[in-house]
Amino acid sequence: MSFGIALGPRIRKSPFFNSTVTTGVTHFTTYNHMYMPVTYGDLAAEYDRLIHGVSMWDVAAERQVSLKGPDALTLARLLTPRNLSSLTWGVGKYVPICNSIGTLINDPVLLRIDEDEVWLSIADTDMKYWAEGVAIGLGLDVRVTEPDASPLAIQGPKAEDVVASLFGDWVRDIKYFGFRDAVLDGIPLLVARSGWSKQGGFELYLLDGSRGDTLWQKVAEAGQPYGIGPGAPNYIERVESGLISVGADTDDHSNPFEMGLGKFVDLEQDVDFIGKDALRKIRAEGVKRRFCGVIMDGAPLASTNSHPWRIMHNGVDVGFASAAAYSPRLEWNIATALIAVEAADADGGLVVLSDDGERHARPTSLPFRKGT
Amino acid sequence: MSFGIALGPRIRKSPFFNSTVTTGVTHFTTYNHMYMPVTYGDLAAEYDRLIHGVSMWDVAAERQVSLKGPDALTLARLLTPRNLSSLTWGVGKYVPICNSIGTLINDPVLLRIDEDEVWLSIADTDMKYWAEGVAIGLGLDVRVTEPDASPLAIQGPKAEDVVASLFGDWVRDIKYFGFRDAVLDGIPLLVARSGWSKQGGFELYLLDGSRGDTLWQKVAEAGQPYGIGPGAPNYIERVESGLISVGADTDDHSNPFEMGLGKFVDLEQDVDFIGKDALRKIRAEGVKRRFCGVIMDGAPLASTNSHPWRIMHNGVDVGFASAAAYSPRLEWNIATALIAVEAADADGGLVVLSDDGERHARPTSLPFRKGT
Repeated sequence: MSFGIALGPRIRKSPFFNSTVTTGVTHFTTYNHMYMPVTYGDLAAEYDRLIHGVSMWDVAAERQVSLKGPDALTLARLLTPRNLSSLTWGVGKYVPICNSIGTLINDPVLLRIDEDEVWLSIADTDMKYWAEGVAIGLGLDVRVTEPDASPLAIQGPKAEDVVASLFGDWVRDIKYFGFRDAVLDGIPLLVARSGWSKQGGFELYLLDGSRGDTLWQKVAEAGQPYGIGPGAPNYIERVESGLISVGADTDDHSNPFEMGLGKFVDLEQDVDFIGKDALRKIRAEGVKRRFCGVIMDGAPLASTNSHPWRIMHNGVDVGFASAAAYSPRLEWNIATALIAVEAADADGGLVVLSDDGERHARPTSLPFRKGT
Repeated sequence: MSFGIALGPRIRKSPFFNSTVTTGVTHFTTYNHMYMPVTYGDLAAEYDRLIHGVSMWDVAAERQVSLKGPDALTLARLLTPRNLSSLTWGVGKYVPICNSIGTLINDPVLLRIDEDEVWLSIADTDMKYWAEGVAIGLGLDVRVTEPDASPLAIQGPKAEDVVASLFGDWVRDIKYFGFRDAVLDGIPLLVARSGWSKQGGFELYLLDGSRGDTLWQKVAEAGQPYGIGPGAPNYIERVESGLISVGADTDDHSNPFEMGLGKFVDLEQDVDFIGKDALRKIRAEGVKRRFCGVIMDGAPLASTNSHPWRIMHNGVDVGFASAAAYSPRLEWNIATALIAVEAADADGGLVVLSDDGERHARPTSLPFRKGT
């Protein structure tokens, strides 16, 4: 199955769109109402660059939601189960967001931009409307907007060298999720140590959407000595690393405990954040499912999955494999899965109803590691 | 420019997805986190079927947001500037939704499903989060969910005959935006006279997502004597008709008055709906822009636009053409546009900065009509 994507004005082009076209992008997805590159036609080379070298990604679709005003921090604390009492400038925090029944609906990184402003660097759901809806209902004095901020990711073991060659060695001191203001030949930016891979790297938050092609060019040139090339959030690497993709790995009932995010839920804090009662009940009753890895037998999968695959255990449907791929590093067929705790704890005996037939499988913990 | 769409588990497949693939869909977009067909490879035939015959569209991506509970109607009335005091079962209403600064953020059709339940048949923004956010903030007793409901549109002058042959002649009595419960060979449905074209027709709201391929097949068979064929919300026809596409025709400041939706704004009602103060101020100050049509000189446009085109008037940027196409019926290059009132009132003298060069243009009212 291979289909074209229709380009039209309802979905936005990223500030890097023209550069990605010139660079040879072949496939897009959409994310936060914006086209996002998925591959430049050579998935093997893109994977290899991310694991062994350095890769540059148009992730402008990772949009920012700004909460600004006297009640910005109050609103932020209501939106997440994470305790934000010790929030400081320059340090990002991963903040799960739940609805009133405790379902995970987004998992942004929160940046404290100013005394009265935070940004949520969001996954693919309209948290702008969620945040403003809550603020309106409560009568909070806060303005919710989408600022002109478009991340360009530089990922892989050589990413730090590329970013240091652009900005100076001071970037090497930025801690994980830390960020700093910077200007590159007149282009305003945030430089953040972050990115949707476990291979290390940075995200340059472009703060002037008219300068996207210039920034792309500068990064490509600075990266040339390091063999930089184009890429995108990598399907295989994210499965190997067990990174959560909200909307793919989650459903209408996925709570942070079953998703392995319990350490970010503080039920003891004195903030009555959204979903607190539901999460307290869920914790008391114990989780029924677990986000885990699954290793499948048989020949290498011909392709990644285009929709969730059901998983059976002892003849019973126990949940779904959300993202499946063949890992060249591990030489395994692997998948992230959300399945019943009993199945996640089993020694084996799972059957994945994949698109190219039933696959016998066993559960494992995330991230995947040889020997587990 | 031609690109593939990456299929993965984050974007959902519609209940009709397999049928559209079998039928030969070639291009998709995404809408409300779901793949939506855009064309089956023969745009001219698809346009012709809609204008002269009958066409069937997978518009399952037109998702429903259910508001259910004692405060459902209270919430609905807070969400829209339209006066809903006389809402009755079986009659849908077009309800613009605005944020606190009066910007149009969605324009669903509201269906009163039950005494304590309404559905919003939404455009492409996450109104589920907007509605629940407001409800949480206000402490309303209402549950916000996305029900298992997936519209299949049957559009065109022969649509009524097809739907009558499936359900009986009673469907001919349904008024515009009216709807009724029905069961088709065990498949639960709503039959609504609605659809995103001005050629007339119905939408069958499939209420059991597992029966999508069966329903598709039944409609295709019933439509065969009438020459039914596949299609999708039609770019050209919607421009001709001046139908609004939120996100394409609107920006972060588009209010209902400038979008021609003032008749749906009741500032005198005693409900303090969201955006009321802002809309009162906007009305008092007068609108600065107008959603209108634009007719462009020159050879037929080679293709539709992939992003908004800026419009100049007397050397000044006055706004943008949101959707542009060559109309075979009118034999004009046409576009919907949101431009300064002075430019919309001008006799001509507009210049559209299209992707294939500058086009001299003149404004007109919507829908487009020969002789205007």
